[in-house]
Amino acid sequence: MVISTPHGNITAPVFMPVGTAASVKSLSSEDLESVGAQIILANNYHLYLRPGPQNIKKLGGIHTFMNWPHPILTDSGGFQIMSLTPRITDKGAYFKSHLDGSLQFLSPETTTLSQIDIGANIIMAFDHPIPAGASHAYAKEAMLRTHAWLLRCIKTWKDADLDRKFARSRTPLAGVEHEFSQDRVRNKQALFGIIQGGQYPDLLKESTKFIVDQDLPGIAIGGAVIGSNPSQTSQALAIIRDLLPKNKPLYTMGVGVKPSDIVSVIRAGADMFDCVAPTRLARCGLLYNRQSKTERLDISKSQFKLDKNPIDDTCDCSTCRDYSRSYLHHLFKSHELLYYRLASIHNLRVMIRTTSLVQSL
Amino acid sequence: MVISTPHGNITAPVFMPVGTAASVKSLSSEDLESVGAQIILANNYHLYLRPGPQNIKKLGGIHTFMNWPHPILTDSGGFQIMSLTPRITDKGAYFKSHLDGSLQFLSPETTTLSQIDIGANIIMAFDHPIPAGASHAYAKEAMLRTHAWLLRCIKTWKDADLDRKFARSRTPLAGVEHEFSQDRVRNKQALFGIIQGGQYPDLLKESTKFIVDQDLPGIAIGGAVIGSNPSQTSQALAIIRDLLPKNKPLYTMGVGVKPSDIVSVIRAGADMFDCVAPTRLARCGLLYNRQSKTERLDISKSQFKLDKNPIDDTCDCSTCRDYSRSYLHHLFKSHELLYYRLASIHNLRVMIRTTSLVQSL
Repeated sequence: MVISTPHGNITAPVFMPVGTAASVKSLSSEDLESVGAQIILANNYHLYLRPGPQNIKKLGGIHTFMNWPHPILTDSGGFQIMSLTPRITDKGAYFKSHLDGSLQFLSPETTTLSQIDIGANIIMAFDHPIPAGASHAYAKEAMLRTHAWLLRCIKTWKDADLDRKFARSRTPLAGVEHEFSQDRVRNKQALFGIIQGGQYPDLLKESTKFIVDQDLPGIAIGGAVIGSNPSQTSQALAIIRDLLPKNKPLYTMGVGVKPSDIVSVIRAGADMFDCVAPTRLARCGLLYNRQSKTERLDISKSQFKLDKNPIDDTCDCSTCRDYSRSYLHHLFKSHELLYYRLASIHNLRVMIRTTSLVQSL
Repeated sequence: MVISTPHGNITAPVFMPVGTAASVKSLSSEDLESVGAQIILANNYHLYLRPGPQNIKKLGGIHTFMNWPHPILTDSGGFQIMSLTPRITDKGAYFKSHLDGSLQFLSPETTTLSQIDIGANIIMAFDHPIPAGASHAYAKEAMLRTHAWLLRCIKTWKDADLDRKFARSRTPLAGVEHEFSQDRVRNKQALFGIIQGGQYPDLLKESTKFIVDQDLPGIAIGGAVIGSNPSQTSQALAIIRDLLPKNKPLYTMGVGVKPSDIVSVIRAGADMFDCVAPTRLARCGLLYNRQSKTERLDISKSQFKLDKNPIDDTCDCSTCRDYSRSYLHHLFKSHELLYYRLASIHNLRVMIRTTSLVQSL
């Protein structure tokens, strides 16, 4: 499947590195190109708080801001807010900023407008994800709220589009051409709805039907059941599979922790994935290795102190080309900043290469 | 002046980025090549403690270990130990490791043997540097000790060379060819003596005469007076200038904090410099800028929040080519790992380019 955006095409299945605050931790745009990233993800929650969507807009949009000329997806912030013990009403979510403790409010309207200003190519609806093990009643309440919020996201998205069409019909003022050009890009932003329903088949089916009925450019499935456990993810995908359109990308949010997670979820029908695990595990010393039963090495172990081999001799990344396990062990033990970048390059490359080698069903 | 090593030639004047623990903080070998580094510096003190000179030797020497195929200089550790309140005797220095508090001992003999095992192209004599403001009596004691230690460094260096010549005269054993090849490289290690004497003209002259008399491949000048203050450095160089040979490189240890420091010290006759300042200042948010009176910007300041300009529009580094002040401000405020690398690339490039543009006298 090829997904088209004004910043280029994406060939699915595709793994999206996570650049929470408009930076994939430790990596430059050149690094991301070198590992084969086609699209990266950023978080509206973080960017809303700092530097703020209006500031990103003034700086020419997120692509210009972070010097990433390829596709970008922003998550709405629904998932991030859940870890901040928010007060959720039908209106939206009240929560305290992790930066300064200030009271904040995000809603379907504000998250959509914020993502429009940020200027990503794919923007996500504001949803109400639920933790693993949530009751059927709670899962249903969160699902119905997610559906109601989606309709408000769609209205905001379409109204913003009308506003821009009106703006373009006026004579452009001197000096604002760039602004209009940005608007043309944002005009093509694709809004994805998010299926919720936890592990409950009836809710998953009901949510899928509702989301599919909105006829949006893409469909996502979220919540703690997705992402944290690949077999549960595959089970959920099997339940909803026949209800999904064939011609639209399916994005399973938060997959995968291990390379094999990606393989199983692609086989279950997913097209797009993101996960902080490759870069986060890398920073903790855990480096993907195909020969290992756990799919990874713990580079902190003293067994690597004199090991001249690359992390994985089947890997084609620059870290495996240029640096040995012994040097990475030394950098990790010495808390050297270079370690985090070299490790992140490797883990992302393994995840992206694994994804590209699996045939979508 | 061209300085030849088995790992390539160095064109002086040359600024050497500091890679304390066999890593210039946050930068890969490719990054160092991209900023124009010809030679980097590593510290015997740090490498002696971790991973240990024997381990670096087993891994093929420091060039192979850290994947830097160009020249490397190691400092002996004399300067680093001074910050650890050591007990200094004529035998050597007793101090506690900064890693685990264990009691350690370094001497002219152990630092020379350690640097031979590490395998840098230029190795430094073990010296007794003195703090700024030291009395004449203390400066003289430290200078005389530095001289006595230098003779022991030279003996160890020459004896190791004899040992290797003896080893090579035997029939090479199967499987140890690489070991012998490494020895041939180490055989060409250049030992530099270090002038001490604080700010006292009589001591500086006495020390210079003694060091020059040893007829080593290069001459350094150290101590807190050098490095911390470019005008004091230039004064010291003016005092010793006529005593120095014209055909040997002069290395002023710990210069420069600002780009203009380099200019003044090159004009005073120096050929080689190293300083942690460019990378350390970068990590603190201080980025070199030629237009600024202080020669630098503090990127943490809110005035850069919406600044689309590069750090310095006359700079040719990849950071200035690809990223704006606004993005660097955002990365710094967000404690993003990418910041440290982009900032270090810029500051090192400015220092190296400044050095290359100044004509040596």
